[in-house]
Amino acid sequence: MSQSQQSKDLAAARSKATFSVSDMAVHIHGSPENVKRRREIAEIVANDPVFARETRHGLSRVQDVNLGLKMGRRYFELKDQLKLSKEDAVILVEMIDEYMPITLHESAFIPIIYAQGTDEQAAYWGPLAEKHQILGCYAQTELGHGSNLSNLETTATFDRATDEWVIHSTTFEASKWWIGGLGTAATHALIQAHLIIDGKNYGAHGFIVPLRSLKDHKPFPGVKVGDIGPKAYGGFAKIDNGFVRFDHHRIPRENMLMRFSKVTKDGQYIKPPSSKLAYGSMVLIRSYMIRVAALNLARAATIATRYATVRRQFNVPTSIRDEANPKLETQVINYPMVQARLFPIIAQAYALFAAGETMINMYTSMLSELMEGDISSLAEVHAISSGLKTTCSTMAATGVEDCRKLMGGHGYSYFSGISHIWSNYVPSNTYEGDNFLLTQQSARYLLKQVKLAAVSPDKVTPYNKYVIRLTNQDAFASERCSVTVEEDWLKPEVQLAAFEHRAARLVGDLAAGAMNKDVVWSDLNLECWRLCHAHSQYVLARSAVDAVETARKQGRQPEVVKVLKQLADLFALHTIQQNLGDLLEDYFVNPMQCQALRRQIKKVQAAMACNVVGLTDAFDFTDHYLGSALGSYDGAAYKRLWEAAVSQPINQREVVEGYSEFLKPILQQHGAAKL
Amino acid sequence: MSQSQQSKDLAAARSKATFSVSDMAVHIHGSPENVKRRREIAEIVANDPVFARETRHGLSRVQDVNLGLKMGRRYFELKDQLKLSKEDAVILVEMIDEYMPITLHESAFIPIIYAQGTDEQAAYWGPLAEKHQILGCYAQTELGHGSNLSNLETTATFDRATDEWVIHSTTFEASKWWIGGLGTAATHALIQAHLIIDGKNYGAHGFIVPLRSLKDHKPFPGVKVGDIGPKAYGGFAKIDNGFVRFDHHRIPRENMLMRFSKVTKDGQYIKPPSSKLAYGSMVLIRSYMIRVAALNLARAATIATRYATVRRQFNVPTSIRDEANPKLETQVINYPMVQARLFPIIAQAYALFAAGETMINMYTSMLSELMEGDISSLAEVHAISSGLKTTCSTMAATGVEDCRKLMGGHGYSYFSGISHIWSNYVPSNTYEGDNFLLTQQSARYLLKQVKLAAVSPDKVTPYNKYVIRLTNQDAFASERCSVTVEEDWLKPEVQLAAFEHRAARLVGDLAAGAMNKDVVWSDLNLECWRLCHAHSQYVLARSAVDAVETARKQGRQPEVVKVLKQLADLFALHTIQQNLGDLLEDYFVNPMQCQALRRQIKKVQAAMACNVVGLTDAFDFTDHYLGSALGSYDGAAYKRLWEAAVSQPINQREVVEGYSEFLKPILQQHGAAKL
Repeated sequence: MSQSQQSKDLAAARSKATFSVSDMAVHIHGSPENVKRRREIAEIVANDPVFARETRHGLSRVQDVNLGLKMGRRYFELKDQLKLSKEDAVILVEMIDEYMPITLHESAFIPIIYAQGTDEQAAYWGPLAEKHQILGCYAQTELGHGSNLSNLETTATFDRATDEWVIHSTTFEASKWWIGGLGTAATHALIQAHLIIDGKNYGAHGFIVPLRSLKDHKPFPGVKVGDIGPKAYGGFAKIDNGFVRFDHHRIPRENMLMRFSKVTKDGQYIKPPSSKLAYGSMVLIRSYMIRVAALNLARAATIATRYATVRRQFNVPTSIRDEANPKLETQVINYPMVQARLFPIIAQAYALFAAGETMINMYTSMLSELMEGDISSLAEVHAISSGLKTTCSTMAATGVEDCRKLMGGHGYSYFSGISHIWSNYVPSNTYEGDNFLLTQQSARYLLKQVKLAAVSPDKVTPYNKYVIRLTNQDAFASERCSVTVEEDWLKPEVQLAAFEHRAARLVGDLAAGAMNKDVVWSDLNLECWRLCHAHSQYVLARSAVDAVETARKQGRQPEVVKVLKQLADLFALHTIQQNLGDLLEDYFVNPMQCQALRRQIKKVQAAMACNVVGLTDAFDFTDHYLGSALGSYDGAAYKRLWEAAVSQPINQREVVEGYSEFLKPILQQHGAAKL
Repeated sequence: MSQSQQSKDLAAARSKATFSVSDMAVHIHGSPENVKRRREIAEIVANDPVFARETRHGLSRVQDVNLGLKMGRRYFELKDQLKLSKEDAVILVEMIDEYMPITLHESAFIPIIYAQGTDEQAAYWGPLAEKHQILGCYAQTELGHGSNLSNLETTATFDRATDEWVIHSTTFEASKWWIGGLGTAATHALIQAHLIIDGKNYGAHGFIVPLRSLKDHKPFPGVKVGDIGPKAYGGFAKIDNGFVRFDHHRIPRENMLMRFSKVTKDGQYIKPPSSKLAYGSMVLIRSYMIRVAALNLARAATIATRYATVRRQFNVPTSIRDEANPKLETQVINYPMVQARLFPIIAQAYALFAAGETMINMYTSMLSELMEGDISSLAEVHAISSGLKTTCSTMAATGVEDCRKLMGGHGYSYFSGISHIWSNYVPSNTYEGDNFLLTQQSARYLLKQVKLAAVSPDKVTPYNKYVIRLTNQDAFASERCSVTVEEDWLKPEVQLAAFEHRAARLVGDLAAGAMNKDVVWSDLNLECWRLCHAHSQYVLARSAVDAVETARKQGRQPEVVKVLKQLADLFALHTIQQNLGDLLEDYFVNPMQCQALRRQIKKVQAAMACNVVGLTDAFDFTDHYLGSALGSYDGAAYKRLWEAAVSQPINQREVVEGYSEFLKPILQQHGAAKL
């Protein structure tokens, strides 16, 4: 096998694509301008030595955080030099692809000041923060209290005499914990603390708390602050998630964020008008997380697809022949088992992009309604965003690691690039609402829709219409999948009917369970979890179907539309297949239909095989953004893996540093060998 | 919440166990002597500063490997000082819980010398290696060829004139890669290379190749050797997996391992008598891997169980009440969702220990048959070990990470201890036979049993008897699960019947598929994979059932036997539930039975709830071996997490190192704040 066989193989696979890759890239990223802008910013990052991939790994914790600070400095310089818009700055952060000590300053501290501060507060703190003359973090979570606001043990007690808040960690477990930027960088924290006036607890409120002196960065007395240490799997390596414990630390009364609740100089507490609006920003974050899920899964899928194309292993015959190279080993991507594992992941990545689009559209239209005082869609959008956050982030994290396993031994090298993606991504299954807990919110909303369907079916919101069927139990019980020949599985209405029936049955069962007086709500957690995923998978499948229509309407190339249809099919059929038990259990599908489903999945995969390199090229990721020796655009996997290894610091000496101290004593413990 | 509430909670939960924890520990580890010995060695490791957990993380790659060498030195010293037996040395390595540069010297290099060397070679190389006067590694895998022996591109060409082998990497991709111990430590490699005499290729053979001088450890000319760099997820941090590329490197003819094939001075190649015996050691390694899977999953389950017991979160009512502390938040372990996720993992860990026992017994009895020239059970034992390796290592890796997710935000701290376990364990899904590839071996064997059943049903091997049912298709098609009330699911024969029916149907379907002339074998990969897991799950369930009987016969406490029965039930029912689709698809179970199954699972879990802390205590792991701030025996999770963080090197300075260089320029980029 010549050194460039891998590059030839990838080029050959690339040439087989039946559709316009650049047109597909426009479909994914929204417009030619977006594609262009992303590329430009990616190039800037790729060419900046501070953001080099080669020097990011193998560092000690102290070196890691230092590099994070260095990257932060460079980020601010670039933002200034290039006069980046807010949107472009977000892309810059995305391309840097590292959580930095300054990340939460921009993504949490600043937005919350504007959202929860009064106009005066925004005018005072906003510019200071925008010009990063102060660096902030958002401190909610405590050592002993995940994110349960109602049980926080940090208090802000009003001292009328001095017009100050006394910030205090009332217990050991009250220490703020996990706060990004707090460990080394932040000069200020936006903390959540229970507000206390005259011994009365008014619950959690936000306060801006100075932590470190702007003169020399030393922590103030009464502020015990530090870094919480390394994270699992080498993730979050460059960010300084920190802790802080307050000992009667005093701040001015005006440092309480008062857009909603207010406290006057004489200690009078003024209630906020409504709290529903706070949901808005939560929805935005969760909506954005769908897109992040898509980006991460798409990256891993790109790497795995390219490497499976250039990797040849064993001479086992497959239905797909590499006629040009009959004597070489089989390309791994031609094995049906690899296709069965990899192709659905590509389809999932596309479905996630589609759902991200759906979600952003829902959010945008909700926002304009909210502006006019209409909160009618808030509940549905909130429920869908919670459900999708759960299903999509679980799917993406699982899929990324599945991509690594698909890559065989080399997948476990740091240089595969998957480690960096997964170790930084997987905590998303826990933060912004634990994926298991969130399922309850989604399920509760669906239960309400069931009740609504019984009295006012026309008021049931769009993505929940299927619950109306439950009002006619006999008709529902006799619903059956209409597939008679395997091609029937390609009809979107057949696919969506299966998703709808499944979700409807599960919400019906949950409703029945919830009526049982002997059952407490928490006993139904598992049922909520099943339902939430069924519903979210339905939203995903529908988004994928809708994306095909959108592409057609927007005048995308017909071949692009055709391939999008295949992807939507594979997403739907693969998901149905993973959950066949749910559909078999009430006879909605029969054994013949199950067999037909499996055959049809294989057919779709076979039809896609020539396009998978093109489909992942269309995500339009640069080599730097992929950060993988095995997944580069030119396919030179082994060459790059070799170069990455040879240039390791440990290999710059002929004999390892610890030879005299450790190895020689081992070799000579029983006397030197006489050879 | 007082600081010691966590310790109180864990002690209270511990006191509720209905069975003798020490008697259970004897059941798990085989004898009171084993339990005692493991504890003694664990204590030795725990008290040795070289093996301290506190100094293992946050290191640079160079520091990591140095610590690995240091640990290796200490290991050899201890082995000598304590005059450890081979078995005890294995426990010592287990307790050190780190792959070291010397690990493969003992676990691969030495055994292979004895297995594949002649008596003379063993007498020469054995003592040198045993006294570690030379340090070896086992070099099979190449950069471009996972572990496909028949396509290796390293050659050993015989030079008759000098009576030497010329070792050469014929291509760039021929570089040996991933070889543990090779990066920095090994003086010798046992390599696999294609043997060539007079231009004729005799395939892969083993050679002992000197790499580095015993004088100064410098690599010999013609040997380009180094470390392959960091692994994914921070795993394998202390071991120096390496690469080597040979440029016409010469070694004496006698360095070829000649127990089987031989090459004489005049270049005559003498064939080996039989190659079947090589399977023996593969079976042993895979059998041992079942136990390793059990140990890893048990560790994570212990940590997660303890932390879920001491962690309180939200005030949501559950069916289980903490009457003693009505005002505190709910213990996480009382939430049904947590039980539904965690308890099956505990049951899986017990099933894995049981299957490990089954496997070792099968291996031992096979070995004594082999000694007498009887190879009749080799094929079954090989097939079962391949299948179990796949199913068990997948189950354990998935379960370990599920335990982390169960622990909420803190699970993602390195100090949860899960990171260390999973990042080092997950590559086991790929090495020693990729978990997806291996399923084919298992499936092929089962197909042969189907054919055998048709002609000589009495010759079908014990774990495959169920295939005999396929010989009567009508009877098979009308088989139904006998459950009428939910308690029926507790009958072992009912459980095993479900596993057997499922595996039988899948092997029947595969046999039908394989008869189709249009289908190539690789098209059936997915079907092999499904079948292999179904069969291995059956072996696991049967092992768990058998373990109950064994415990009874060995006179374990009746309460221990009772609890083991609950664990076997939960393992079987949970596994069946995860695969209900397979049983619904041919009407073996009906909807009523599915509902009954889910109810029965909840009942078993409720009955187990008082015992889970005891069940994980019974694994008998020391705090050092667990390596978790959150899972220590005393339950002081938050205190330990705090201490781990505060003592971090990065926190030993008041102001972070990079302040002047990076933070100050950020803060003053737009002029210093005027506050």
